[in-house]
Amino acid sequence: MIFSNLEINKDEAIYLQIEKHILDGINKGELKKNSKLPSTREVSKLLNISRNSVISAYEELESKGIITTKRGIGTFVSIEGETESYEYTVDFTSKLNEYAYTLRKLDIIKSELPYKKGMISFKSISPESDLFNLDDFKRSLLDAWNFEESNLLNYGYAKGYKPLIDYFFDYMKDKRVKVNNKDILITNGFTEAFDIIIGSLTKPGDVILCEKPTHNTALKIMKSYGLKIIQIDMDKEGLNLEQLNKNLRDCVPKFGYLIPSYNNPTGIVTKTERRKEIYKLFRKYSVPIIEDGFNEELLYSSSPIEPIASLCGDGNGVIYIGSLSKILFPGLRIGWIFADEKLIDILESVKRGKTIHSSFLDQSAFYYYLKSGAFNRYVKNVRKYYRDKYNLVMNMINKYIPYEYVTGEGGLHIFIKLKNNINSRKLLDLCYNDGVIFMPGDIFYEDQNHGLDTFRIGFGRVSDEDIVKGIKIIGDNLKLLGT
Amino acid sequence: MIFSNLEINKDEAIYLQIEKHILDGINKGELKKNSKLPSTREVSKLLNISRNSVISAYEELESKGIITTKRGIGTFVSIEGETESYEYTVDFTSKLNEYAYTLRKLDIIKSELPYKKGMISFKSISPESDLFNLDDFKRSLLDAWNFEESNLLNYGYAKGYKPLIDYFFDYMKDKRVKVNNKDILITNGFTEAFDIIIGSLTKPGDVILCEKPTHNTALKIMKSYGLKIIQIDMDKEGLNLEQLNKNLRDCVPKFGYLIPSYNNPTGIVTKTERRKEIYKLFRKYSVPIIEDGFNEELLYSSSPIEPIASLCGDGNGVIYIGSLSKILFPGLRIGWIFADEKLIDILESVKRGKTIHSSFLDQSAFYYYLKSGAFNRYVKNVRKYYRDKYNLVMNMINKYIPYEYVTGEGGLHIFIKLKNNINSRKLLDLCYNDGVIFMPGDIFYEDQNHGLDTFRIGFGRVSDEDIVKGIKIIGDNLKLLGT
Repeated sequence: MIFSNLEINKDEAIYLQIEKHILDGINKGELKKNSKLPSTREVSKLLNISRNSVISAYEELESKGIITTKRGIGTFVSIEGETESYEYTVDFTSKLNEYAYTLRKLDIIKSELPYKKGMISFKSISPESDLFNLDDFKRSLLDAWNFEESNLLNYGYAKGYKPLIDYFFDYMKDKRVKVNNKDILITNGFTEAFDIIIGSLTKPGDVILCEKPTHNTALKIMKSYGLKIIQIDMDKEGLNLEQLNKNLRDCVPKFGYLIPSYNNPTGIVTKTERRKEIYKLFRKYSVPIIEDGFNEELLYSSSPIEPIASLCGDGNGVIYIGSLSKILFPGLRIGWIFADEKLIDILESVKRGKTIHSSFLDQSAFYYYLKSGAFNRYVKNVRKYYRDKYNLVMNMINKYIPYEYVTGEGGLHIFIKLKNNINSRKLLDLCYNDGVIFMPGDIFYEDQNHGLDTFRIGFGRVSDEDIVKGIKIIGDNLKLLGT
Repeated sequence: MIFSNLEINKDEAIYLQIEKHILDGINKGELKKNSKLPSTREVSKLLNISRNSVISAYEELESKGIITTKRGIGTFVSIEGETESYEYTVDFTSKLNEYAYTLRKLDIIKSELPYKKGMISFKSISPESDLFNLDDFKRSLLDAWNFEESNLLNYGYAKGYKPLIDYFFDYMKDKRVKVNNKDILITNGFTEAFDIIIGSLTKPGDVILCEKPTHNTALKIMKSYGLKIIQIDMDKEGLNLEQLNKNLRDCVPKFGYLIPSYNNPTGIVTKTERRKEIYKLFRKYSVPIIEDGFNEELLYSSSPIEPIASLCGDGNGVIYIGSLSKILFPGLRIGWIFADEKLIDILESVKRGKTIHSSFLDQSAFYYYLKSGAFNRYVKNVRKYYRDKYNLVMNMINKYIPYEYVTGEGGLHIFIKLKNNINSRKLLDLCYNDGVIFMPGDIFYEDQNHGLDTFRIGFGRVSDEDIVKGIKIIGDNLKLLGT
């Protein structure tokens, strides 16, 4: 009998299990068309379940036209077990375009050595989940639900959740940015913000100036759109001004892409005076700046540095991308573009053509979380936590790693340039065998023949014990490579 | 005194209000650099608030370097009120590309007559929010939170939330689709799914065959990528086979894009036999089909029609896009691509380069909602509700609207072709003045000189009373236009 091999589990509604079981039977050919099913009473007795569950399942199947009940006679299967199929196979590899292949080729999740369970991983720059103030977030989620309810479930607005937009306006004002003639578009994190900007404002072959090294995701997106990327050297104060001026003058760049507040991967914070000089140069050549506000909140130093966007006054030369969620809840995928209002009007239509709008549940929960003050408490709390970790990492590096320099002063990662041109991928291969993994530096360079002797150490989610152990292992392997 | 004009409100944490007030004062020039602030005790007394709130605000500002406390002396403003600014203005209109302009031009939210409060709107095809079983959803949201907690807040996977992917695999199996060598990618609804597919698999100038008329968002996206769109006529059974064959043979199309289960806007359901013929033609010319599963769940008819993907067996010729959320919670923006596993591998990297991943909070809540059986209950419930509305709409149309034909048999909208070539935009202008709005049909045609005498009536969110009133108004205006 068809039900004799069914075991009911507790995790799923019973009627759904019954329904699936019958469908499986039909598809496997155990139940032929026109064959009779046991009565709901028999099934409930056999499986020791409520008869209502069985009735629900039968009704459901009947409403889908899969079984038919003839009153007083019984219930019968009304469809054939196997669908007629006519296969055909398409060669999609010949149809995929350059854009898709570039994103696949540069997908570091797929191309770099993977983390394996039990390893000490310095690869990620994600925050430590244990620090999330979950009760605060749960409260915000419930606040969002109680205030908005069904509004969160029907279509929202491409621009974003209005209270959150207003919150971000205040946030920009707090950073002494002028908001006249500006507008905000909420996006699925930095990545979508950057994709929308690059996808809307560039053509293949356009030149973009950026820092050397720079954010791997930004490099990937720019390459996927066929842009020409020119990276400008940095010192510990920021971009090299002479090189910047030369390239602005000679290369007719479409944009600059800058991460002045905490360069990824180096962690270099561009100093106030240097920001002004950089800004003035871009202005001189009327080249707009895409400013990535990455990590502004996490700097350990107590002197706040205002974004480059604050220098722009009522002008529109800076497009600012913000994403608080990166240091808070990266899984929420909330970012924003702050820019000229006429530009945002167009980018809003682009956003609508790409994803319609970002999750209103996420946006609303995040808004109530920010509004409650929980975000500020969280940042204060984690700043100290990560500062302690940073100090430990630096102690260990000074002890075990012969470096040319180390940069980074207030985030979840630091960047190391090794002495004697040691190849960091060779080092990684050795460390990987010993259960330690980190991010090789070349992925942050447009031309991956650069940065071969550099690597990034992310420490946000590494225990103190593993930091000590892991960096010693890196040091031991460096010795094997002849340092 | 700086605090004399501050009024504390109840909605926001008090210390944040204090903090903002001081920042405002600095930015407006009311608080100069080095000026002394009142003591925390004074402020708490003046405003009648807890001293701790004031201390928190001061500490916060101090940690940001905005004020400095000198022990025993007082607290002082440590920054200048106005940032030096050097404006510059960029002409972004000259920098935006064709892609962005096309999406702006075809953004019907911006280009079509807007809904105004108090109007009777047949424009939207959104579901009625009052039918959402909110308690079920809240329970699912809490289930998601309780089972996953911080997992939902740190980075997730580009492919999607594993339990939801598995659920959708079962869903496809239930529809008698074979899942061997197939994989699933979760997206932000249909729109992102289609954007990823078109963005990855086409080049400007490629030919796409689709139904005439067809989904406006799909048309918009295809146009934004510079594709050549050929629309094939339909009758009430589905696509015209002769025309399809001719175009498959002569035009070297890259894809077909089809909505066989409920064409938007016409609501035509392609019949089983016609599906087979259509499928066989695409197979004959080895052209893959992008199948939009729109509205499968909502059909009033009890005989289920299997998706075209079920005909494909172990072949890979059909790329299926699903999105249950459209009839359920459109705001959740959850859809999926079901296709050849090697293709999904690449599209996963594309997704990572566009939005990293979709909201895990949404995905997880939706999963628990589906798993609980609440979705099936909901669909059963709303199917009856919308069927009744549909019947009312059809009665009214038969009474008041002289049509050549009406199509649609089980969704949230129907489609009307008027008699005597009446221009539906002229009709809309008249109705708009009388407080009634609907969607003109030309937006569903590649060439907007077609469908001029058609329009779509969405009724999901219109009360019975307004249906009666609204359709009568349309009828009255038709008389004015000389029918």
